[in-house]
Amino acid sequence: MAEPKENLQMEKIVSLCKRRGFIFQSSEIYGGINGFWDYGPLGAELKRNVKELWWNAMTRQRDDVAGLEATIIMSPQIWKASGHVDTFSDPMIDCKTCKGRFRADQTDEIACPQKPSKCVNECHGEKTEARAFNLMFQTYVGPTATVADIAYLRPETAQAIFAQFKNVLETSRQKVPFGIAQVGKAFRNEVTPRNFTFRSREFEQMELEFFIKPDEVVEAIHGEVFKCSVSSVQPEAAELKTENLKLETPQPNWGWQAWHQYWVEERVRFYEGIGLSRETLGFHHQTPAELAHYARACTDILFKFPFSKKDEQGNAAGDELEGIAARGDFDLSQHARFSGKPMGVFDDELRAAWAKLPEAKQKDLRQRYYENRKKYLAKMGVEDKQAEKDAEQDANGLAKGQYIPHVIEPSAGVDRLILALIANAYTEVTKTDDKGKSETTVVMKFHPRVAPIKAGVLPLLKNKPELVKKALAVRDLLRPWMNVFYDDGGSIGRRYARQDEAGTPFCVTIDFDTLGEKPELLDTVTIRYRDDGRQERLKISELLDFLLSKIR
Amino acid sequence: MAEPKENLQMEKIVSLCKRRGFIFQSSEIYGGINGFWDYGPLGAELKRNVKELWWNAMTRQRDDVAGLEATIIMSPQIWKASGHVDTFSDPMIDCKTCKGRFRADQTDEIACPQKPSKCVNECHGEKTEARAFNLMFQTYVGPTATVADIAYLRPETAQAIFAQFKNVLETSRQKVPFGIAQVGKAFRNEVTPRNFTFRSREFEQMELEFFIKPDEVVEAIHGEVFKCSVSSVQPEAAELKTENLKLETPQPNWGWQAWHQYWVEERVRFYEGIGLSRETLGFHHQTPAELAHYARACTDILFKFPFSKKDEQGNAAGDELEGIAARGDFDLSQHARFSGKPMGVFDDELRAAWAKLPEAKQKDLRQRYYENRKKYLAKMGVEDKQAEKDAEQDANGLAKGQYIPHVIEPSAGVDRLILALIANAYTEVTKTDDKGKSETTVVMKFHPRVAPIKAGVLPLLKNKPELVKKALAVRDLLRPWMNVFYDDGGSIGRRYARQDEAGTPFCVTIDFDTLGEKPELLDTVTIRYRDDGRQERLKISELLDFLLSKIR
Repeated sequence: MAEPKENLQMEKIVSLCKRRGFIFQSSEIYGGINGFWDYGPLGAELKRNVKELWWNAMTRQRDDVAGLEATIIMSPQIWKASGHVDTFSDPMIDCKTCKGRFRADQTDEIACPQKPSKCVNECHGEKTEARAFNLMFQTYVGPTATVADIAYLRPETAQAIFAQFKNVLETSRQKVPFGIAQVGKAFRNEVTPRNFTFRSREFEQMELEFFIKPDEVVEAIHGEVFKCSVSSVQPEAAELKTENLKLETPQPNWGWQAWHQYWVEERVRFYEGIGLSRETLGFHHQTPAELAHYARACTDILFKFPFSKKDEQGNAAGDELEGIAARGDFDLSQHARFSGKPMGVFDDELRAAWAKLPEAKQKDLRQRYYENRKKYLAKMGVEDKQAEKDAEQDANGLAKGQYIPHVIEPSAGVDRLILALIANAYTEVTKTDDKGKSETTVVMKFHPRVAPIKAGVLPLLKNKPELVKKALAVRDLLRPWMNVFYDDGGSIGRRYARQDEAGTPFCVTIDFDTLGEKPELLDTVTIRYRDDGRQERLKISELLDFLLSKIR
Repeated sequence: MAEPKENLQMEKIVSLCKRRGFIFQSSEIYGGINGFWDYGPLGAELKRNVKELWWNAMTRQRDDVAGLEATIIMSPQIWKASGHVDTFSDPMIDCKTCKGRFRADQTDEIACPQKPSKCVNECHGEKTEARAFNLMFQTYVGPTATVADIAYLRPETAQAIFAQFKNVLETSRQKVPFGIAQVGKAFRNEVTPRNFTFRSREFEQMELEFFIKPDEVVEAIHGEVFKCSVSSVQPEAAELKTENLKLETPQPNWGWQAWHQYWVEERVRFYEGIGLSRETLGFHHQTPAELAHYARACTDILFKFPFSKKDEQGNAAGDELEGIAARGDFDLSQHARFSGKPMGVFDDELRAAWAKLPEAKQKDLRQRYYENRKKYLAKMGVEDKQAEKDAEQDANGLAKGQYIPHVIEPSAGVDRLILALIANAYTEVTKTDDKGKSETTVVMKFHPRVAPIKAGVLPLLKNKPELVKKALAVRDLLRPWMNVFYDDGGSIGRRYARQDEAGTPFCVTIDFDTLGEKPELLDTVTIRYRDDGRQERLKISELLDFLLSKIR
């Protein structure tokens, strides 16, 4: 039974988070509020760094992605079109005796609210039938609070991207394939928030909707769709690593499988780049039974959290950091139907290519596109005749260069990633001194790119004005470029230990040699590395470039 | 009557925002949702830049401010303590005939919902008495939706800072005076959102709560409180500029007036640093009648928007970008009383100083502190005897080095600032060509620090592979350091015009001279300045440093 050890590990992490100001319980002085967490000074910096790195990698460093920042409260129609109003719910039962309300699938895990016991097992009261409980937080917009004023806090950031797809397309000089990226808060009224910040009621997402040509369109233009060497539905992590390096550079003849695979690989590269090695990650390829009805494939990238379930050999698969879903043209189609606004694009490359296709090929592609559209419409409950008519019209669009783009959605949770980074960084180091006395300290081994503080700047002694003056000059040299922490309190060893616990990768110490006590060391400082305690001497004139090369 | 011209100016700005992807109506395809706005690709970058600059200036570049990122939904107790549950409301009246609901103070401005007319003036139905309508959005947390589950979307970010004051103090190695900074969304169910994004229902704030010693404590430690040369209650803008430069470097003997003045000045420097000159700003010093009951002073920094009201001379005072309030110890005191958790700090400098004070001085300071505390408690409805007892206890704390910090709050609205930056940047340029044909284009003269795109990278011709290759190399050189836009479509003049409209301060053109057609110009590019069209030649090896020096 490894259980207690993992609980202990989580307890230590939660304690460190509170003690060092990474994460606090929201509204703690009022007893907290279940499922809500605040980020303290170090946590806020860590989170900013992660979001900034994602935005940079996904948007600024690419020509083919544009950003968006939409509101949390949107028209409720959006959630009707997306299906959230009707189906974003958990089954709940009420106990008529204890008046508790429980998730129908968790009744044996949850304590009865009226006594410290398991409800179903010990409170033998009569239960209601399971009813759907919608997870969206509801509110009213405007002064009258009528049914017409109902609005929801978004349960995901993705839908705003679909709703603004045409506006972004028309203003950003993008054409398919291209993506729209967004970072922002989302809310789910989880019945049982759990595992610290892993499942909370208010959380932040980093989502990309990457719009691609349907396979029929790729085939019309390029003759055939690039075949992936590995099925994107059931690849193994090892194969991802070795066989798909060719998927690093997008190609015009990619279909949805290659794009899906590419984004899985691209996102894994991102996690590696911020310190989560492939060994700490897992992959889950959703089975047909798990997939949403509109999805063609979904690969979850997992992280092995201390609370992740282990098999009999003690191996954890991990819990989800991010899902990369191939969602077809479901979302844009839904918004087109619900809003009455066209969501298709015009593609002159397609129109030109189509005109040159043999008739048989046109017929084949047209038929496949028609079938896909009809299948979607039928699934959405559109009556047969109408579905055939609409699908016919959609298929006619191909010849005019028109289609509804498909989408690949890499959707990551910020808070889960922060928790993964914290769990991954958490390291205990035990040192035994000359007298045999041993002490255990915590070193947070964050990748320098995400570390909340990049460098501690430490004058050897605080009561020597020349040291302090020089140290402040070093602080001011670095500060425009990175987050630094100036600390002159206590012994140098204690200050190193404090920075180790904050996860600061480098400490810069200003001592008498810096001032020229050894003339050959004038204007040099000591760089001390967090992870191994190694120290080396560096010229102040080289310090900024040195640190920038490490933290970027 | 200047009215129509200003309306036209706003129309042009709104149109540009939509056309170039700065700002879209939220949920536009569903007819929008009143009071909610989305930021498109350029708007999202502009907003990110502004928030990042604020965070940098207020947090990372200072030793005395720590960051926080708290949840939007918090314990409802927080809003009871802050007074929002009881008093954050507008007076509303209902018309019994047309069933419309109106702000009691705006009945003659608002169209009747049932006919295109003014309600009070033209729909002569019976009106209800004015009732308080709370502006907080309400929701339920958890599955039962009982009164005990009511929660609110925060109407300001400030209160989370007060609620987490002790946690931050204990984990961040700060001591008073120090601040806690937060950027995040807030929500107000405004009855009549208006003026584009200026007054919306979902908005973002950048707030600092800067905690200071009460004047009595400063006096106990330093003998006297530094006298401001200008009253912070009624300074003039011109005086702010010339007389208070001495308030650039915080001093230990500053009382609340100096700190208030310092933060007004500091925030004006921030606005100047992102392109809003003092001439575009205005100041409003709240009168005693305008001040919140707990506030000692509040200075609003205004911007002269196109919709700002003008006096008879045509001068606009402006509308509020930011308020800098001296809030005393009201907030921490309220949370101490409502949570039952102590919010005071221990200050060993005070304890040491107090012990050395003459008895008369102790008595005087103690009495003044006592009076302030009693006044606060009485105002909050604490019964006389109890108020005296509590104030007594608070005053006794001084000798032990204990007090409740006071606070200066610079509170800025992100969306208002974005709108100000857009309005300030908007410039029409009319050029007449040789044939006498004139054309008007828009140039968005953003300060390079906030500009969404820092540099356009343009190969002279898109069908010359050597030019394209070189241009992509320049793009890749700059991109890790700034947001660049690669554009090879259309004539170079058209591409400049597109970047002018996006507000891109620099265009970098790669031409045949770059490739060495004139050998002495090998590996040089043309830098073209947005604001005056000036062009100059620069070595590629110097390009990154040149641009970094301009945009940072």
